[in-house]
Amino acid sequence: MEQVSANRAFNGVQGVYKHASAETRTEMTFSVFVPPHADGETLPVVSYLSGLTCTHANVTEKGEYRGACAELGLIFVAPDTSPRGEGVPDDPAGAYDFGLGAGFYLDATQPPFDRHYRMWSYVTEELPALIADNFPADMSRQSIMGHSMGGHGALTVALRNPGRFKAVSAFAPIVAPSSVPWGEKALAGYLGEDRAAWRGHDAVALIEDGARVPALLVDQGAADPFLEQQLRPELLQAACEAAGMPLTLNMRDGYDHSYYFISTFMADHLKWHAQRLR
Amino acid sequence: MEQVSANRAFNGVQGVYKHASAETRTEMTFSVFVPPHADGETLPVVSYLSGLTCTHANVTEKGEYRGACAELGLIFVAPDTSPRGEGVPDDPAGAYDFGLGAGFYLDATQPPFDRHYRMWSYVTEELPALIADNFPADMSRQSIMGHSMGGHGALTVALRNPGRFKAVSAFAPIVAPSSVPWGEKALAGYLGEDRAAWRGHDAVALIEDGARVPALLVDQGAADPFLEQQLRPELLQAACEAAGMPLTLNMRDGYDHSYYFISTFMADHLKWHAQRLR
Repeated sequence: MEQVSANRAFNGVQGVYKHASAETRTEMTFSVFVPPHADGETLPVVSYLSGLTCTHANVTEKGEYRGACAELGLIFVAPDTSPRGEGVPDDPAGAYDFGLGAGFYLDATQPPFDRHYRMWSYVTEELPALIADNFPADMSRQSIMGHSMGGHGALTVALRNPGRFKAVSAFAPIVAPSSVPWGEKALAGYLGEDRAAWRGHDAVALIEDGARVPALLVDQGAADPFLEQQLRPELLQAACEAAGMPLTLNMRDGYDHSYYFISTFMADHLKWHAQRLR
Repeated sequence: MEQVSANRAFNGVQGVYKHASAETRTEMTFSVFVPPHADGETLPVVSYLSGLTCTHANVTEKGEYRGACAELGLIFVAPDTSPRGEGVPDDPAGAYDFGLGAGFYLDATQPPFDRHYRMWSYVTEELPALIADNFPADMSRQSIMGHSMGGHGALTVALRNPGRFKAVSAFAPIVAPSSVPWGEKALAGYLGEDRAAWRGHDAVALIEDGARVPALLVDQGAADPFLEQQLRPELLQAACEAAGMPLTLNMRDGYDHSYYFISTFMADHLKWHAQRLR
């Protein structure tokens, strides 16, 4: 692991790091904010998964999380959204919603994507091991959050790793990729046409199939242009109700899909995580 | 004036606008955050002048000011750092510290820069008039702040417009451009070799010549790579002491010149401004 940059912020350190990933067979870049803490102290870890077109940099620059993480004593980890680099196949037409910047947090089974697109194993195994080894992290106190495609990632990762995360939250998540255009394209492209294989990467299907998380918070902008066709939080709400799983779903009047929305509610989410990570 | 974008944030509106500037004879872009407020209410205005290489976008995306402005009821205005567009001359060698992105908040007298580089008149006259006409602004309650080259701008604008600004603050400002490489290059290039003309755009010289501001706050990173050669806050400190003008200068251990530094102390600065704008 190599440090790309380190900047003091809110009395902690905002770092950016890169490493050769065994999973993706590429160099991967991620950011970590470590808040001020006592020597030898270990801290809970919040992982943040980003949305389509993003790298680690978007939330690092625009997410406005450092003040709250410093106050609450949280390590904040932000990986990239896909493998990148020479030899990594992209969307054949260069579309923004598949391929580079759009890994959908799964292990692809379809060539040519199966060689590098292993974001599931990367964010669930390889990156956490790196964080545990290199930062003052208490890996027994983890939570996860994400935005849009990263909300999908946070939900599915938490649902399929029971006991690992104390809490999961999302901004404007894709909750049912099997049922929306972004997801149908991605799941077919990465996993093939057999829809049975998609259920393991569809939060609503996972809940229908019995998966649970201990605490779930979702904020959704009511003026989000992707709300009705791609995000469909009502499907998550129905699945949680049917399963008897608690969900706090905040619809936010006037808010869109951008980091102006995310940054507005970031501190609220982090306080909610911190309460569950104590 | 045309609205480029408007995003709801912290219950207010973060807008970006463009207009044909009579001063710079170019299209100019700026951002304005209007916090939540009652119908008919007018609000104090904080202008933020950015540093070398920036546009309005840097602080708008990375400055982390919206939460504090929403809480304190402050309008936040962020102009560009130079004219831009076809026909606007740049540094002959394309350097970052002169020409595009480096207007130094003065009216150039030297050809070919004198035709478009009129950032002094733009930020002191044309833009405030536009803000007064188009936003719920109480122009009797203004303050100004800036970063690096924009700290130079904020200091000189406030010093030469007594009574207009209730407070002025800066992050890592250029305080004595006549005495540092960035400033010597810019002042010579825009104003010519006669150093007498430079004193009107040098905060330390203006204080020596009798100009005063009512309240002055500066934060400076002690690990700023530009500290010793370009910023030299000790010159401002000495000038303020000699003049009997109060200055709060906070040296911040470990902090550099970046928006990680600025965003850390932005809310503190805005609270300090708000106290003086009530």
